[in-house]
Amino acid sequence: MRIGVYPGSFDPVTLGHLDVIYRSSKLVDKLIIGVLNNSAKSPLFSVEERVTMLEEATKDLENVVVESFDGLLVDFADLKNANVIIRGLRAITDFEYELQIAQTNHKINPKVDTLFLTTSVEYSYVSSSVVREVGLYGGDITHFVPANVVDRVYKKCKEMEKTNP
Amino acid sequence: MRIGVYPGSFDPVTLGHLDVIYRSSKLVDKLIIGVLNNSAKSPLFSVEERVTMLEEATKDLENVVVESFDGLLVDFADLKNANVIIRGLRAITDFEYELQIAQTNHKINPKVDTLFLTTSVEYSYVSSSVVREVGLYGGDITHFVPANVVDRVYKKCKEMEKTNP
Amino acid sequence: MRIGVYPGSFDPVTLGHLDVIYRSSKLVDKLIIGVLNNSAKSPLFSVEERVTMLEEATKDLENVVVESFDGLLVDFADLKNANVIIRGLRAITDFEYELQIAQTNHKINPKVDTLFLTTSVEYSYVSSSVVREVGLYGGDITHFVPANVVDRVYKKCKEMEKTNP
Amino acid sequence: MRIGVYPGSFDPVTLGHLDVIYRSSKLVDKLIIGVLNNSAKSPLFSVEERVTMLEEATKDLENVVVESFDGLLVDFADLKNANVIIRGLRAITDFEYELQIAQTNHKINPKVDTLFLTTSVEYSYVSSSVVREVGLYGGDITHFVPANVVDRVYKKCKEMEKTNP
Amino acid sequence: MRIGVYPGSFDPVTLGHLDVIYRSSKLVDKLIIGVLNNSAKSPLFSVEERVTMLEEATKDLENVVVESFDGLLVDFADLKNANVIIRGLRAITDFEYELQIAQTNHKINPKVDTLFLTTSVEYSYVSSSVVREVGLYGGDITHFVPANVVDRVYKKCKEMEKTNP
Amino acid sequence: MRIGVYPGSFDPVTLGHLDVIYRSSKLVDKLIIGVLNNSAKSPLFSVEERVTMLEEATKDLENVVVESFDGLLVDFADLKNANVIIRGLRAITDFEYELQIAQTNHKINPKVDTLFLTTSVEYSYVSSSVVREVGLYGGDITHFVPANVVDRVYKKCKEMEKTNP
Repeated sequence: MRIGVYPGSFDPVTLGHLDVIYRSSKLVDKLIIGVLNNSAKSPLFSVEERVTMLEEATKDLENVVVESFDGLLVDFADLKNANVIIRGLRAITDFEYELQIAQTNHKINPKVDTLFLTTSVEYSYVSSSVVREVGLYGGDITHFVPANVVDRVYKKCKEMEKTNP
Repeated sequence: MRIGVYPGSFDPVTLGHLDVIYRSSKLVDKLIIGVLNNSAKSPLFSVEERVTMLEEATKDLENVVVESFDGLLVDFADLKNANVIIRGLRAITDFEYELQIAQTNHKINPKVDTLFLTTSVEYSYVSSSVVREVGLYGGDITHFVPANVVDRVYKKCKEMEKTNP
Repeated sequence: MRIGVYPGSFDPVTLGHLDVIYRSSKLVDKLIIGVLNNSAKSPLFSVEERVTMLEEATKDLENVVVESFDGLLVDFADLKNANVIIRGLRAITDFEYELQIAQTNHKINPKVDTLFLTTSVEYSYVSSSVVREVGLYGGDITHFVPANVVDRVYKKCKEMEKTNP
Repeated sequence: MRIGVYPGSFDPVTLGHLDVIYRSSKLVDKLIIGVLNNSAKSPLFSVEERVTMLEEATKDLENVVVESFDGLLVDFADLKNANVIIRGLRAITDFEYELQIAQTNHKINPKVDTLFLTTSVEYSYVSSSVVREVGLYGGDITHFVPANVVDRVYKKCKEMEKTNP
Repeated sequence: MRIGVYPGSFDPVTLGHLDVIYRSSKLVDKLIIGVLNNSAKSPLFSVEERVTMLEEATKDLENVVVESFDGLLVDFADLKNANVIIRGLRAITDFEYELQIAQTNHKINPKVDTLFLTTSVEYSYVSSSVVREVGLYGGDITHFVPANVVDRVYKKCKEMEKTNP
Repeated sequence: MRIGVYPGSFDPVTLGHLDVIYRSSKLVDKLIIGVLNNSAKSPLFSVEERVTMLEEATKDLENVVVESFDGLLVDFADLKNANVIIRGLRAITDFEYELQIAQTNHKINPKVDTLFLTTSVEYSYVSSSVVREVGLYGGDITHFVPANVVDRVYKKCKEMEKTNP
């Protein structure tokens, strides 16, 4: 059985992420979305909230599961018996960085390979950081994130404003 | 009437910025320099100081005004009835980032388009962050910023050293 | 009066070109589409055919005219009293090349500046050479070129096959 | 069953190509290497020679077959009932070009997706054109192509010298 | 006498750094490795530890010395009577940034030129930040740093965990 | 003694080339400018003319000699006992290509290393192909090539027009 891991922060999940998830779910028997629990960064959403939003957005995909992880990606992939790591590519600077990470991971664990999909044209400019920036000022984010995420972003941004006025 | 917005942090304004301002002021009827009041970052100069330095440096350009703004750039452009956003391009990594922002802004507000000018050859390597770095150590910054800014940078850097010795 | 020149081979005009033409026609008082008559390359369409296809596709834009030229672009812009040259940007390699040309042109004729628009997301991958390649094998090009161009491409490709079977 | 197509000119096959073939053969049930029969370019080796060299070099991979094709890649992939097109990525300029082709192919035939693998570090600089250039002057190509290809390149280059002295 | 400065943070020194040091030590009469004492960033290793690790790793190279510095690189190069600054290049984003710094430094001090070496293929993906990330989670770093550095990284990472559990 | 080879087509030599020659002549004991006699391409100037123009332009540099070569660059470097190959870098696409060639050359002949200098800001956009294009249409090339080359370009372009009217 071919098992793929699609790792990321997903803070929050965007339509670009979902596009990669739908397309890569057809290429493996099981797709594990790995939500990075990076304590060093301060995410907008907790790792539990990020997992929940992804589970809602992918509930129609039978071979997709969502799990959080910390530590090294190659260790997580190993633990899950994954054959491939899946990454979406948007731009040049993405590509250089992704290339470096893929080659490092291959050196640490040669059993896991990295596959790249290019983000579909219509989502090529969408990123979680843009969603957070636009959401913070009440701009329209319905073109950028799935329906179940829109109100959560506005609500979370309002909470943050109260804490840091 | 064609109205352009040239946004940025301008911390401080450089000769590269001024080059874009001079050239783009000829392409629109009115040019509004929008100084971003980004409270999340800690700028070297306050937004008022940055507006003042820009006003001094552009006082001979009759169709140029300087204003500060916070919030989304597209909202500021909309408020000012601007038709175009103007951006200077220096390098590859600039370009990728600028492309992403331009496409996001176009999706949020399709009425405003983004125009790019390439920085003139002689200023292609100048950036505000380089000015701050060189100024901090007392290096020569006269090739990088307009005359009215040189002493302000040295003075501000000395003040900062006293606060964070 | 602000006059812009939008130069290219337009062999044939694509929806990406048209997108740049529509958007830039709003930014100048008069837009001159300059069709390069490059005898060194062997285009699919003659320069007259390329001018005709552009005239048909832009007939609703009152401030747009189509002209062919040979020689240096800056000389053509000078002859037409243009203030700006307009270029569409798609990708990194485009950008580097465009940057070099813009700086060369500025050195030869400092009176003319170059403005860049980024191609809209949905046309970011379209190019005339892709249209010619796909058309040659009878693939679907309706997403890539304006309606008045589709059949002309198929017809021209068939003619070429007869000549070079 | 998941079927992949790995297209290219393979003029000649390099160790970088073989690396992509070995790794991608593990990710699909059947891998079809599609050798492009591009009559417009003048290849060093005939399409039959290129197919033979690939068959020799991949004879130990049971789920790999080699076929030549002309016309559009998406039509070949469709004919072969392929789900994915597989491409190796080396560098930035590769990436931009590959991105454009992948998005064009997706528009023409949405049923086929494109997957990218990054060439392994040790082959990141190898290309068929470098092999032809070095071979032409009798340089050492044993680090660049599989053993069965080395002598064929030298022999072919000598033949060409006789024809075009 | 030609004197070169090879500056960096070296937090910690990697096999990629060592590769550049070995190769550039043959190109100058004396090579000074300049370890940047950047108080603004919080390095994993103190500047003294970083100097020590470099001295151990380069003890067989007779014309190489290791020194720490703060302030501007061009001032350090000037103080040491260096003719050239030496930098290793890995990737595109590296290159753009390095180009900007080299041109700034040349403007501040035209007596010093900057030379670039490309990192050898096998170390093209190695960086100090990757070493710190992998070391933090106990991953295998023996392919990335010299032997004398391996245990120091694990030990330092454990110390940090105790301080920030 | 450190011997450097600076290879190129130099068709014709530009001020950007000369900038690299002046700067690199200070970094080696002897600098050999290698003019590539590439019979496959049809240069504007013969290899003898290109050597002559370079000799005129570098006659004040005592440690610089000009020679033509064909075949592989590493073989020429080996023949001349060169320690380093010197290359000028202008842009991203340059860099990728140069990186590939440097790594190929290192694999074929590990005794020769490749050093890169970045072209000075004011010549960053100049290339021989731009000079030929502008010269062909009688544009001003005095900012792009040394004084001894200007008239030769105009004269050669006129000759070509007569041959291919």
